[in-house]
Amino acid sequence: MWKHLVSQLGHVELKTPVVEESAAFFTDMLGMEESARDGDSIYLRAYAEFHHHSLKLTQAPKGDRPDVGHIAFRAHGPEQLDELVRIVEAKGLGEGWVDGDLGHGKAFRFKTPDGHPFEVFWEVEEWQAPDGLAGPVHTRPQKLPSRGSPVRRLDHVNITCNAVQPVREFICDDLGFMHAEMAVIDGTEEELISLTTSNNINHDVSITKHPKGWSGGISHTAYWYDSRDEIMRLADLCRDYDVEMEWGPARHRGSELFFFYVREPGGHRIELCTGGYLVFAPDWKTVRYLASENQAVYWSGELPESMYGD
Amino acid sequence: MWKHLVSQLGHVELKTPVVEESAAFFTDMLGMEESARDGDSIYLRAYAEFHHHSLKLTQAPKGDRPDVGHIAFRAHGPEQLDELVRIVEAKGLGEGWVDGDLGHGKAFRFKTPDGHPFEVFWEVEEWQAPDGLAGPVHTRPQKLPSRGSPVRRLDHVNITCNAVQPVREFICDDLGFMHAEMAVIDGTEEELISLTTSNNINHDVSITKHPKGWSGGISHTAYWYDSRDEIMRLADLCRDYDVEMEWGPARHRGSELFFFYVREPGGHRIELCTGGYLVFAPDWKTVRYLASENQAVYWSGELPESMYGD
Amino acid sequence: MWKHLVSQLGHVELKTPVVEESAAFFTDMLGMEESARDGDSIYLRAYAEFHHHSLKLTQAPKGDRPDVGHIAFRAHGPEQLDELVRIVEAKGLGEGWVDGDLGHGKAFRFKTPDGHPFEVFWEVEEWQAPDGLAGPVHTRPQKLPSRGSPVRRLDHVNITCNAVQPVREFICDDLGFMHAEMAVIDGTEEELISLTTSNNINHDVSITKHPKGWSGGISHTAYWYDSRDEIMRLADLCRDYDVEMEWGPARHRGSELFFFYVREPGGHRIELCTGGYLVFAPDWKTVRYLASENQAVYWSGELPESMYGD
Amino acid sequence: MWKHLVSQLGHVELKTPVVEESAAFFTDMLGMEESARDGDSIYLRAYAEFHHHSLKLTQAPKGDRPDVGHIAFRAHGPEQLDELVRIVEAKGLGEGWVDGDLGHGKAFRFKTPDGHPFEVFWEVEEWQAPDGLAGPVHTRPQKLPSRGSPVRRLDHVNITCNAVQPVREFICDDLGFMHAEMAVIDGTEEELISLTTSNNINHDVSITKHPKGWSGGISHTAYWYDSRDEIMRLADLCRDYDVEMEWGPARHRGSELFFFYVREPGGHRIELCTGGYLVFAPDWKTVRYLASENQAVYWSGELPESMYGD
Repeated sequence: MWKHLVSQLGHVELKTPVVEESAAFFTDMLGMEESARDGDSIYLRAYAEFHHHSLKLTQAPKGDRPDVGHIAFRAHGPEQLDELVRIVEAKGLGEGWVDGDLGHGKAFRFKTPDGHPFEVFWEVEEWQAPDGLAGPVHTRPQKLPSRGSPVRRLDHVNITCNAVQPVREFICDDLGFMHAEMAVIDGTEEELISLTTSNNINHDVSITKHPKGWSGGISHTAYWYDSRDEIMRLADLCRDYDVEMEWGPARHRGSELFFFYVREPGGHRIELCTGGYLVFAPDWKTVRYLASENQAVYWSGELPESMYGD
Repeated sequence: MWKHLVSQLGHVELKTPVVEESAAFFTDMLGMEESARDGDSIYLRAYAEFHHHSLKLTQAPKGDRPDVGHIAFRAHGPEQLDELVRIVEAKGLGEGWVDGDLGHGKAFRFKTPDGHPFEVFWEVEEWQAPDGLAGPVHTRPQKLPSRGSPVRRLDHVNITCNAVQPVREFICDDLGFMHAEMAVIDGTEEELISLTTSNNINHDVSITKHPKGWSGGISHTAYWYDSRDEIMRLADLCRDYDVEMEWGPARHRGSELFFFYVREPGGHRIELCTGGYLVFAPDWKTVRYLASENQAVYWSGELPESMYGD
Repeated sequence: MWKHLVSQLGHVELKTPVVEESAAFFTDMLGMEESARDGDSIYLRAYAEFHHHSLKLTQAPKGDRPDVGHIAFRAHGPEQLDELVRIVEAKGLGEGWVDGDLGHGKAFRFKTPDGHPFEVFWEVEEWQAPDGLAGPVHTRPQKLPSRGSPVRRLDHVNITCNAVQPVREFICDDLGFMHAEMAVIDGTEEELISLTTSNNINHDVSITKHPKGWSGGISHTAYWYDSRDEIMRLADLCRDYDVEMEWGPARHRGSELFFFYVREPGGHRIELCTGGYLVFAPDWKTVRYLASENQAVYWSGELPESMYGD
Repeated sequence: MWKHLVSQLGHVELKTPVVEESAAFFTDMLGMEESARDGDSIYLRAYAEFHHHSLKLTQAPKGDRPDVGHIAFRAHGPEQLDELVRIVEAKGLGEGWVDGDLGHGKAFRFKTPDGHPFEVFWEVEEWQAPDGLAGPVHTRPQKLPSRGSPVRRLDHVNITCNAVQPVREFICDDLGFMHAEMAVIDGTEEELISLTTSNNINHDVSITKHPKGWSGGISHTAYWYDSRDEIMRLADLCRDYDVEMEWGPARHRGSELFFFYVREPGGHRIELCTGGYLVFAPDWKTVRYLASENQAVYWSGELPESMYGD
């Protein structure tokens, strides 16, 4: 049930052993703009985003699994930021204020019950288009990029965990997200995946049970396109320019999204998506699938084995 | 600024001198389902809508202009319904409770400062798919229709008025919608059009200055598609089956929507749209165009003269 | 190398144990029109086809594999029809004239070296739209159908055989088709699949080595769409209305076609396709892939095992 | 009626007062590749074209109207080249052999009865992809470009003339093209526009009556896209990067093409198109429209006045 404490997913920090190659993928293939560099990090945003960045890439040693730095949400206002801090502190999950990251004001760091590194902030720096890049459409801060197949905006993250339910309850009951959908393992009430959302899109955080029971991970970060054709153009480009394609383009049954999963050079799974439904009902009844109903596939191919891993 | 008193545009009642022909257009061309008939009215819904109906067509004598019966919004909850009643009563715009319309609970009728017939309700009857029509996707209550080019859901209404600002202030300041966009007449602060929204879509109510200064009218009712191709398929069908096409398919600059305007047999302008941006920021700064910037056209043709009329 | 003896693939006769169910699939899902019934057969055409039919469905007992009745080509003229008869007779493959099938003049029946039942005809009956079905576009004989996701025209057949090369040489060297593409088994010159065409589309006959070495079969019959979205709409409909989907929507590397394979109720594999390249060069150099290069997949999923069978 | 003397439209030479700006438009916006520079000329090709170039841009003083250098067709073979020379010489329209232009063998220059500068050639140089640009799809010589919205191939030219019929008869009766469509002025047999084709696409040469009766001109040069979305992406880019848009994106009734007309920096009208029908029938009956039926518009807006000029 929405509490309107969080207004949206703000940005994601991905750690990559090849930060320059990763940045080149996001700028050349996904048409993103580099908004800043600072230390070991490169900040990027999509063409329709007003915020300073939606993606922070940070150089890191190659690890066992692609590592997420943090996942940041924007509060619904300054009071809601304080209220969120009270809530996570009361749960014993708070980690304290983080100050001085580029592009936004003070942020509070906390963990989900499964250990995911979350942050919440309110104040944000608006990105200013450099000379010549502002365009005739005022509802986005810049012209459509003419390179690659440009993403419009950050859409969602999918986090992996040992058990879905405690994380989902924390996100919905405490942080005030709506529980839009779930798939439960047949004959049980154990959640295999749950989709939750802070606003009207059908999910900005999805929570998946890790097949090996690992905690605190990320399955993928998803960017939004206006049309399926743009995603298929990206698939053409990925094939021709040797980007690793993992699944799709195809269509999910749950979420109704048209999707495409690729791996950026640092090993992170990136989803590109469009379509799907919006949740408008404050009394939305969580949509339920059985795992055996294969919520993942509306059409075009089964889930590849690799998708079960990080 | 969102107050979260209204959760969404619920339904629109259009008066038509040819109710059967009008209903045939919505079912055959737009793939809508008839959910009920009652007296002089036919109730219809789109395939992804859970509510009993999003459109009520009511037989009426042919008037000077296409006549709207009422425009109904769903509150954000029962308390928010009461709060809305208090607000409009305090403004002297309340008209009293309406009971017994099909498909939803008690509704409160009121007028905008320009006389538009609005209603607000909370309780709603969920549509139940008849045998064989429920499909494998649980986030919509039925299979995709196989006739015409089916619309997914009601998107917005555009109302016309003598002056935009008082209506826009009522909708935003009193009813708690976000003021997403406006175009002002050059050299003045007079609003030519304003887009307002009760949720994250960029507008569910747009307000246009009537070229003749008439009050309380409706310019058009808009339904949503998942893709541009579906709208172009509809254009093909409209041409082949003699539906009056008024403008597009083309793309708006304001709202960024891909659009198509047609006239249903009763004379009402119906917009079909997809794409566009979402508003996530609680501190969204109203996007401003000058009338001379032609907010209406991103590409493909000027606004036809007829679009200025009812 | 084109000899311009054949102008196009004309029609395909598929034998089905459930002729009514098969016909319902082609009319309801693919938007085809029934042009005639005669004895055990139902004749169908797509909305942009001028000929009497492109598909003949004939009632037959359920066999071990979906059975093709015959595959008919239109000659490039009456002299070319005679020339084709001379050529196949000289090869000892002629079977004689067939007279009196609906929708076209006399046809000559012959077999490929692998036993496929081919016919060639010149005179053809033009389909006349019944009252109210002729539309404003004169380059197709009827309005766009408003049901299902309508196919535009017959595109190609894929025939299976014990060995590709003799069939491909017969079709290209004798019948005068262009050899557009092939995939050869690595380390050999044995053709796994060859694409051949009587005109500028990249193939109207493709020839595949049957995995079990069976002769004279058909892998699939393909219809053409104007856009990928129409094919994805069909996929939605197939999922919701329980049509068996086999592969795709996705994109081939060879042919560059966007494809979708389904099974009609009689068991025949039907491909729906769009895109791809045209062959304009009279001196076209046959494009060559190795089997290991996986000509079948440009993106979106591997060839399912079932695709190797009939 | 096809004589198969010409196999395809080969290339077009456009004279431009701003050759560098023109070339930048074709490479940056349409994703074309520069294949050579020679003297005052820049040669360009689209990503799926095997020939050395399909467009030659030549520096020229700014004239009264955009000026075409020449329009070149590829013969169907060396004998057909000789046969074409005999035919045009017999008509007194021959101008002699041209030798030494880049990218193809000897070409014969001639004029249409209305003075259009035509050439025909057979031998052609195949473009070789530079290191790293050859991709995994062998039916095109290079990877999909990742800049702008890349065109696939040259599609057609539209030439303007004092009277259509003599030019159309020359192209069809003498050069052996098929007369696919025409629109005649109401109450007369005078052709306003005729579509003719040397192969299966519905036209590679269209012939339009010039509104001022001028001879020997060109209305536009058209490039082909695989999808409508790519054309709409180009429209977005044109709007954001200040390319002059003239008409569309929209859909023609004649040809059934989805179209978009822009002006390149040198003033030439360039059409971008996709869709439409193919002509397979050797006995195709020329499709006929009346001028009053407005063959130009299937949907989305009337022909702008400017389209009537050069």
